[in-house]
Amino acid sequence: MLYKRNPQLNKSGELIHLLSIEGLPRAILTHILDTAANFVSVNDREVKKVPLLRGKSVFNLFFENSTRTRTTFEIAAKRLSADVFNLDIARSSTAKGETLLDTIDNLSAMAADLFVVRHSESGAPYLIAQHVAPHVHVVNAGDGRHSHPTQGLLDMYTIRHYKRDFANLRVAIVGDVLHSRVARSDIHALTTLGCAEVRVVGPRTLVPSDLSHMGVQVFHNLEDGIRGCDVVIMLRLQNERMSGALLPSSQEYFKSFGLTPEKLRLAQPDAIVMHPGPINRGVEIDSAVVDGPQAVILPQVTFGIAVRMAVMSIVAGNEA
Amino acid sequence: MLYKRNPQLNKSGELIHLLSIEGLPRAILTHILDTAANFVSVNDREVKKVPLLRGKSVFNLFFENSTRTRTTFEIAAKRLSADVFNLDIARSSTAKGETLLDTIDNLSAMAADLFVVRHSESGAPYLIAQHVAPHVHVVNAGDGRHSHPTQGLLDMYTIRHYKRDFANLRVAIVGDVLHSRVARSDIHALTTLGCAEVRVVGPRTLVPSDLSHMGVQVFHNLEDGIRGCDVVIMLRLQNERMSGALLPSSQEYFKSFGLTPEKLRLAQPDAIVMHPGPINRGVEIDSAVVDGPQAVILPQVTFGIAVRMAVMSIVAGNEA
Amino acid sequence: MLYKRNPQLNKSGELIHLLSIEGLPRAILTHILDTAANFVSVNDREVKKVPLLRGKSVFNLFFENSTRTRTTFEIAAKRLSADVFNLDIARSSTAKGETLLDTIDNLSAMAADLFVVRHSESGAPYLIAQHVAPHVHVVNAGDGRHSHPTQGLLDMYTIRHYKRDFANLRVAIVGDVLHSRVARSDIHALTTLGCAEVRVVGPRTLVPSDLSHMGVQVFHNLEDGIRGCDVVIMLRLQNERMSGALLPSSQEYFKSFGLTPEKLRLAQPDAIVMHPGPINRGVEIDSAVVDGPQAVILPQVTFGIAVRMAVMSIVAGNEA
Repeated sequence: MLYKRNPQLNKSGELIHLLSIEGLPRAILTHILDTAANFVSVNDREVKKVPLLRGKSVFNLFFENSTRTRTTFEIAAKRLSADVFNLDIARSSTAKGETLLDTIDNLSAMAADLFVVRHSESGAPYLIAQHVAPHVHVVNAGDGRHSHPTQGLLDMYTIRHYKRDFANLRVAIVGDVLHSRVARSDIHALTTLGCAEVRVVGPRTLVPSDLSHMGVQVFHNLEDGIRGCDVVIMLRLQNERMSGALLPSSQEYFKSFGLTPEKLRLAQPDAIVMHPGPINRGVEIDSAVVDGPQAVILPQVTFGIAVRMAVMSIVAGNEA
Repeated sequence: MLYKRNPQLNKSGELIHLLSIEGLPRAILTHILDTAANFVSVNDREVKKVPLLRGKSVFNLFFENSTRTRTTFEIAAKRLSADVFNLDIARSSTAKGETLLDTIDNLSAMAADLFVVRHSESGAPYLIAQHVAPHVHVVNAGDGRHSHPTQGLLDMYTIRHYKRDFANLRVAIVGDVLHSRVARSDIHALTTLGCAEVRVVGPRTLVPSDLSHMGVQVFHNLEDGIRGCDVVIMLRLQNERMSGALLPSSQEYFKSFGLTPEKLRLAQPDAIVMHPGPINRGVEIDSAVVDGPQAVILPQVTFGIAVRMAVMSIVAGNEA
Repeated sequence: MLYKRNPQLNKSGELIHLLSIEGLPRAILTHILDTAANFVSVNDREVKKVPLLRGKSVFNLFFENSTRTRTTFEIAAKRLSADVFNLDIARSSTAKGETLLDTIDNLSAMAADLFVVRHSESGAPYLIAQHVAPHVHVVNAGDGRHSHPTQGLLDMYTIRHYKRDFANLRVAIVGDVLHSRVARSDIHALTTLGCAEVRVVGPRTLVPSDLSHMGVQVFHNLEDGIRGCDVVIMLRLQNERMSGALLPSSQEYFKSFGLTPEKLRLAQPDAIVMHPGPINRGVEIDSAVVDGPQAVILPQVTFGIAVRMAVMSIVAGNEA
């Protein structure tokens, strides 16, 4: 068979899992963003709940610890009225030598409806999605360096909210692109949504020149990279990169690639600045930018809850 | 007083705590299994909830860590609409030198309705049950080597589901019977429910010959032990046994007592294979058996949720 | 500006945060106690829930671990029908170098309604309260040596329950007053509520003589300190004090300052004995007193849930 169906879609082309933005048609992305727009208002209400997932069981399977991301999914699921179960996988049976798929089978047998999976291995959520029964859904909450699709979607929601249209946008993604699943997801999403120009910016050790095959322009100089951009997405610099051979020091890095108010002036006057958090003030971004008028970092968080509510309610409504 | 009332029953003979299967009359066991049958369908619904424990507070007190078992009780309680509180006891006040009963008194004063207790010491749930007020209930989720009554009950539910009647059954329990609270609970339950023949099978170091006082037949050879059986219950082999003097190595163990498709052919052609999980593939059981048509290991998990819902709703409905 | 408004009150003088009992007017304290009285009965019901915080998001932010206190707030919030999120802060982004206020901004952006904050640094809850948006509320669950206002309030509730009126009461607070946020909160509350006489009792190393500026009488002898008292509040002795230079040994301490039935006879015949828990039997208090008729330690716990429900429902009903 030459043609292999995207495992995220059923035969009717509806979203049943969210594993990666790569390969998702524009119509699906737009549908998620439109659905999220409805949920943004729910989060502003006195009673922040809708009964869409009432009586459903959502399992947070975090094989890699991330309290922040787990919490956003827990909030989103509870605001959809689901029952949420947080499994501290590191301390549980996988540690006792059980295989990943035996763990999944076991939890599925408890009548799980939706697995939110974070894993240090790229592809783990795919493996799980291909294994589960037709009524069970998988949402990738970050797998290795591969993908972090809900972060990519909330970034798109934020850009659309402030810039309306992707057609004429110039977007720069700045920092450790090499190790970033966020960058990967953003690039796929921006390309699919018809963004005019996507740039990646960073030192040669963190932004390989051969990334151009992804349809992006590569810059190794921050000033050139953000000049004239409408959107600047700063990536978090992992502390563990510092000790290695990839980077000299955090001060050196900040001097070359840290976003300051002065450098930001090279972008469009109404450019927005984004960051997936948590922020390293004074490492990849200056405090004055974080707290300045162009930063939309906290709205990203707000939209992130709505986007996760949208993704969970959409996949839970479709069957394989 | 020569006669001492079973602490699990009130004066009317109704179940108020589930501490051990030992000493429970057949009518109580049957009542639990019948109630569980109703809950199996609840877990298949779109909205997997019934309001039986709405506004009740269930405390998971796991003095011994077991994410899997804790999760099954959390699911069961939430599907009964209870509020569930997971206490990480190892990190809390008991670690500060507070006594077990002071901890219980304290939590009871917060208006607890039901304690689910897991403890490494045999008898801890009894101690707690004898101490709490008349409207508070205790369910044993495993105490030392002594008892794991909800596992025993879900095993009985599974056997009854596939075999209808216990009267003519031949059941083999295979493995580390000596250290297994599951084996103990299964033996008591099978005997009470009128099972024709219960066998225990394993090496001399793990299956003492004097177990015959429990009304079981002892085998030190797997082939002899499972020959003609209708049900084969495999026990998990704890890794920590391997390093000790009790066993040579996991390969040696598998050669003698691991269940392979070939050996399984000695049992009845329609024999079912059970396992409490998590499974050690290739140690106590061959992967081909786990994934084969006779294994009912995942249905055990599904029935386990329903059995725990049954136990919690029954005890919460009765007063001391 | 000479006059600085109490950050816990809005312009109309209504409670919007609970940070400290210090500076709160008597009418506010009385309003909390009166509201708690209504919730005591809720905790006795079959269905222990009221819908006052339905659809609200309560975040337990415990920068310092305390399973017991966290659980009491979780219970209180769930009985008010809120959604509760427990953040294991030690393992999350603050550990990754994010600042406290960035963490708060981030969680606020997820549409938090109420933060329950425990922190080892005195003043952390104030910092957070001054930072959050007008519709977000902060409750201090213990900050450093500074304050533990809900414990202070539940102590007042307990005293009022048993003694009706504060006007003619003689109250002794016994033990490690120096390091105790409970003692501080109790002293402020008792003074505000018009208690006739507040005494602090303990060794010179743990009860500095200059505490008299707080309007209390200082005693370095237990017999003198509790003589004629109506209420004796025993403080927990932290084990870590023992190893230091502050105290000789726990046996020596018990001999001088441990409350025994004999010593308790020096207080009023109907004196009540309180303790914030967890208890060190045989260190600061004799088992015979803990289990005796004058101890009201478990009612304190029960009232504590109601007091926390009162505080959360009151602050959530007011806007800055």
